[in-house]
Amino acid sequence: MHHTITPESPVGIFDSGIGGLTVLKAVQAALPSERIIYFGDTARVPYGTKSQVTIRKYAADDTAILMRYQPKLIIVACNTVSALALDLVEKSSDSLPVIGVLKAGAEHAVKVTQNGRIGVIGTQATVGSNAYARAINQLNAEIQVVSQACPLFVPLAEEGFIDHPATRLIAEEYLAGIRSEGIDTLVLGCTHYPILRRVIARIMGPQIRIIDSAEAVALRTKTLLAESGLLNSSSKASTPHLLVSDLPQKFSQLYQLFMGSELPDVELVEV
Amino acid sequence: MHHTITPESPVGIFDSGIGGLTVLKAVQAALPSERIIYFGDTARVPYGTKSQVTIRKYAADDTAILMRYQPKLIIVACNTVSALALDLVEKSSDSLPVIGVLKAGAEHAVKVTQNGRIGVIGTQATVGSNAYARAINQLNAEIQVVSQACPLFVPLAEEGFIDHPATRLIAEEYLAGIRSEGIDTLVLGCTHYPILRRVIARIMGPQIRIIDSAEAVALRTKTLLAESGLLNSSSKASTPHLLVSDLPQKFSQLYQLFMGSELPDVELVEV
Repeated sequence: MHHTITPESPVGIFDSGIGGLTVLKAVQAALPSERIIYFGDTARVPYGTKSQVTIRKYAADDTAILMRYQPKLIIVACNTVSALALDLVEKSSDSLPVIGVLKAGAEHAVKVTQNGRIGVIGTQATVGSNAYARAINQLNAEIQVVSQACPLFVPLAEEGFIDHPATRLIAEEYLAGIRSEGIDTLVLGCTHYPILRRVIARIMGPQIRIIDSAEAVALRTKTLLAESGLLNSSSKASTPHLLVSDLPQKFSQLYQLFMGSELPDVELVEV
Repeated sequence: MHHTITPESPVGIFDSGIGGLTVLKAVQAALPSERIIYFGDTARVPYGTKSQVTIRKYAADDTAILMRYQPKLIIVACNTVSALALDLVEKSSDSLPVIGVLKAGAEHAVKVTQNGRIGVIGTQATVGSNAYARAINQLNAEIQVVSQACPLFVPLAEEGFIDHPATRLIAEEYLAGIRSEGIDTLVLGCTHYPILRRVIARIMGPQIRIIDSAEAVALRTKTLLAESGLLNSSSKASTPHLLVSDLPQKFSQLYQLFMGSELPDVELVEV
């Protein structure tokens, strides 16, 4: 049941909700001619607080939705799915190339660290899975990885508590331990966290390099498409096709928070 | 397709997740001999940030799950569903009596207020629906209702930030407006909020009476069962039957937070 893949085929991106828009934005900036299909599972968001069984079921559903659009490549913009269900996305996507934010972020962090001590922050499910440490240690077994779940960062970002004293207090508490571990690199292991980047950076201090996986994903996507002769050579910039499983009241506001632009047309799909 | 209803039939309770356990606890305390089936849709929680279409779909699913157990009565422990989909629960439950937390809380507040000014706090969906104001004004059109969405209270409660300085800052910000409105009664229009009751009460001040709908629901349930001759006369205390759609890592911890007791056996059901 292979579909035909051409340079004109779209790039598929999915996420548990709208956090993955940070990835969409980076891919669009790096590859403006690519057609992009983005699916956000806004009816079942968040994934990060749920069990592995449920996350894997949702990941299979999300992949099936993107496969209807016959993509040439799938990007898993959700760290939780990248950590717990990437194999399932690969199995459900007909041997298409699959790029997960987690591996891209891990690779970037390994390149950047000088002292071999990397910190990772993310949702409870991502941190509990230990997947960042595994991905980093597969690249370099000597590197020490310290991680910390920051479960309130997603709701704080979504509520726009970006530089609020309460956010600073909570971030101070979450990050105190990891800051004292002598790391020189911190991976933002959740696509919402770039929204809180300034608060996080201020607490961690200027000597710690912060890695946002979205840009790493965009670069890997570009390389992979170029290597396989699948770059879209059209000179026309393409508008992304947005699919969501729910359209809550706040959607347009959240879209602006993540993308910095007005909400385009959005298509509602059932999960 | 009516099922046979006897005093031995169970009382069904459902919620978007585990917040409704505060209702289970109150019903159990008021009616220790009743068999209770509780369903929490932990795979799709939260509902309060989602659209009405999605909330109504989920409410129909939740009702269908309880109906398998042939209950004599259904309690909607979720304020969001009570606000946006109670009619659908009534339609899907074969003319069983349905008790929603929202109406029970509204009735209690109307009884309690002296000055005719009632405040309501809840999720964005509940507050946006204006359902509390409608329910209160159906009982007494003269009463003024002021409401405020407090979207961060659910994650703060679930993360155990019960009496944290950050919680106090956020609560101070959410409640400043409603406190200045001259209300004498405040309805906790979300089942998670009793967890933060102390912080809320301190900010509102001692002159404002706080209404927790869970107890109002328990009393209404007792009256309704007694009136229809359906009280279970068994002298044996019954253990509730717990159903959930997901069993996340933190489930047992959250159960303890809400119930103050160890987690009993839990059954996983598909939605």
